[in-house]
Amino acid sequence: MSVKSFYQAKFNAAIDTVQSEGRYRIFRDIRRSKGSFPTATWFKDDGSQSDITVWCSNDYLGMGQNACVVEAVKSAVDAAGTGSGGTRNISGTTRYHVQLEHELADLHGKTSALVMTSGYVANEATLGVMSKILPGLIIFSDEMNHASMISGIQRAQKIGVCEKRIFRHNDLADLEAKLKAAAPDAPKLIAFESVYSMDADIAPIKEICDLADKYNALTYLDEVHAVGMYGPRGGGIAEARGLMDRIDIIQGTLAKAYGMIGGYIAAETAIIDAVRSLASGFIFTTSIPPSTAAGALRSVRVLKITPEKRKKHQERANALKARFRSEGYDFIDGDTHIVPLMVCDPVKCQAISDRLINDYGIYAQPINYPTVPRGTERLRFTPSPDHTDAMMDSLMNALHDLRTEFSLPQQKWAAGKVA
Amino acid sequence: MSVKSFYQAKFNAAIDTVQSEGRYRIFRDIRRSKGSFPTATWFKDDGSQSDITVWCSNDYLGMGQNACVVEAVKSAVDAAGTGSGGTRNISGTTRYHVQLEHELADLHGKTSALVMTSGYVANEATLGVMSKILPGLIIFSDEMNHASMISGIQRAQKIGVCEKRIFRHNDLADLEAKLKAAAPDAPKLIAFESVYSMDADIAPIKEICDLADKYNALTYLDEVHAVGMYGPRGGGIAEARGLMDRIDIIQGTLAKAYGMIGGYIAAETAIIDAVRSLASGFIFTTSIPPSTAAGALRSVRVLKITPEKRKKHQERANALKARFRSEGYDFIDGDTHIVPLMVCDPVKCQAISDRLINDYGIYAQPINYPTVPRGTERLRFTPSPDHTDAMMDSLMNALHDLRTEFSLPQQKWAAGKVA
Repeated sequence: MSVKSFYQAKFNAAIDTVQSEGRYRIFRDIRRSKGSFPTATWFKDDGSQSDITVWCSNDYLGMGQNACVVEAVKSAVDAAGTGSGGTRNISGTTRYHVQLEHELADLHGKTSALVMTSGYVANEATLGVMSKILPGLIIFSDEMNHASMISGIQRAQKIGVCEKRIFRHNDLADLEAKLKAAAPDAPKLIAFESVYSMDADIAPIKEICDLADKYNALTYLDEVHAVGMYGPRGGGIAEARGLMDRIDIIQGTLAKAYGMIGGYIAAETAIIDAVRSLASGFIFTTSIPPSTAAGALRSVRVLKITPEKRKKHQERANALKARFRSEGYDFIDGDTHIVPLMVCDPVKCQAISDRLINDYGIYAQPINYPTVPRGTERLRFTPSPDHTDAMMDSLMNALHDLRTEFSLPQQKWAAGKVA
Repeated sequence: MSVKSFYQAKFNAAIDTVQSEGRYRIFRDIRRSKGSFPTATWFKDDGSQSDITVWCSNDYLGMGQNACVVEAVKSAVDAAGTGSGGTRNISGTTRYHVQLEHELADLHGKTSALVMTSGYVANEATLGVMSKILPGLIIFSDEMNHASMISGIQRAQKIGVCEKRIFRHNDLADLEAKLKAAAPDAPKLIAFESVYSMDADIAPIKEICDLADKYNALTYLDEVHAVGMYGPRGGGIAEARGLMDRIDIIQGTLAKAYGMIGGYIAAETAIIDAVRSLASGFIFTTSIPPSTAAGALRSVRVLKITPEKRKKHQERANALKARFRSEGYDFIDGDTHIVPLMVCDPVKCQAISDRLINDYGIYAQPINYPTVPRGTERLRFTPSPDHTDAMMDSLMNALHDLRTEFSLPQQKWAAGKVA
């Protein structure tokens, strides 16, 4: 067997495994049209194309087509060009980055913020460097935490002395038992999310902060599915609940409600300065383009003073949930803007998604393992302020046609109880 | 001691360590002006501002202000809005991404390519997932490999069974000895760079590929400091030397010569498909904005057919090296576009950089540990096609003023022999 075929067989085997489990992913090739989101064009494999309604975007508020944001991006490109041309340390820090970080610090009531290339990188780089700063750190991690937090914790364990204790999802008793069992003088950090993206539920932030105080732990809160959408100024769930000052490190994204790309952390200056100075995933990478920072800055500012967009967003999500409820669909009926319809079978989930887009022009990507646990496959709907009643009618009609054919499960998931 | 002060002290201590070693980084706040790069505005801490010439950008060819690229970005923003709104699997794959990947595959003579959010992520995610696909993998890594490759290998070791063997920089005998010592039937991968960014030297690619063939190893080549700048179409050093077909995975960036942001790998389809399906850092993150993909696509296409820009780039680099040589400066006189002036002291390196920007409007960031080994601190100059003779005159005059004051070392570094 030649070199190439020896390895070729192994790469093929890896793909075969994914395929045999019914979770081989086919990326839909689409093009959104500014001004008409959530409608978009779908480019099919056969070369044809058709109009679709996107029901699975994380551009939750449609800010990706906001006129002010678009204008800010274009102006910055005209003024400063496209890429930043360097890492933050080597010519890649610009006015735009500095202003954006001031704005984000203010948003979260912190003294500093640090922008990174993505929310994934912000989690991975920040958690990853903590064992270097806090040797012997024990990280208490919610079992449903995002892949990027898990990767960050793995990094912390690889590059320093760090233990991980996974606590049951949103389970305060389990968290406390694990905190109590740990050495009292060891540095501790509790890592969790506010809105869990796939289960649409919210963490008991106050109670977790109480435990953190009781057991001398730092708190690290991922608010990527909440910033822009919750709180009087869009500061997230912690802002909505008046708890921002109790979170040591707030992590957020510019790629979802803010309609751009990039991620960040906000915290007191000593924390930010240490991460800035030591985290590999922050130091050794080109900074986001000036125009990305400019667009994000504008988006954060717009959403700080536009609570009506948040109100409309919630109204739309509630409207969809009311329809699902009245039809008796098996969905997670939570308190957030995310509406997951349970299918609980990867092949069926893909098949329904295929039928929806092919026959009805409705785009809802199947959410399969590893994004969610096996057996909890789902279609995840994210109604934005721009999803109309007519669009909801079309969706309900399509699901009505398909529910019998695919024997969609009857209600059995209680709100926020997927695990 | 309260919770906060317990941790505050540890974060402060981490920063104190960095400061005491003279490598605390102060990010210069600048703003480039499209059309007049490499000049830019520097915003000082005291609120004043002044004009500077940027000598340390990785926008090596000035494509960040290229009219075609700027136009492509703005057109795409007008057509499709700002952010992509999702991961590649969940509504974040667009026409622009698909076209860019086709273009990159073509650039490197491969059947597929995969775009990620940065070159850092491309290295980390791709190398990181290799132990999952090739259990028992042994990665042979050049000792000067970039932090992102090191991080990727660490990830591979954390999530799977993987050994790392570090070979001496560009040392074929050492690499062969280590390959020979490894179990013949173990999967192997040689990870290296073409142009080493801080030492300005080039790997013996052909000879490394010969060893890979001899010992049944895959080859993984980081071309981030070469794509766009070397080879008849900008395919990098491997293209220039006719060796692209001997590299299994070519990794590149869109953030340097192409003037945008983002990174990628190019390889045969089975490899790309396996990485696409399994790499956490690729799967669980928002895709680059459509406009970023559009700008990168245009930039790749422009540079494919603009060899004169590469020629001019080399001419400018050679002009600067000739001046350094005739003045007897201690610099790395290599075959690339990167011109590192050795200072070999972190405090002095910072001080010279400060004097250059304050007194002469010349911006060259000090390159200190951990970017380079301690004791090899340097000022790294990257002349672009837009750096004029007059700018070089100014730089030489400034260095002339400072060389005695700071007793800059006399020539002692041979080309490509930093380690």
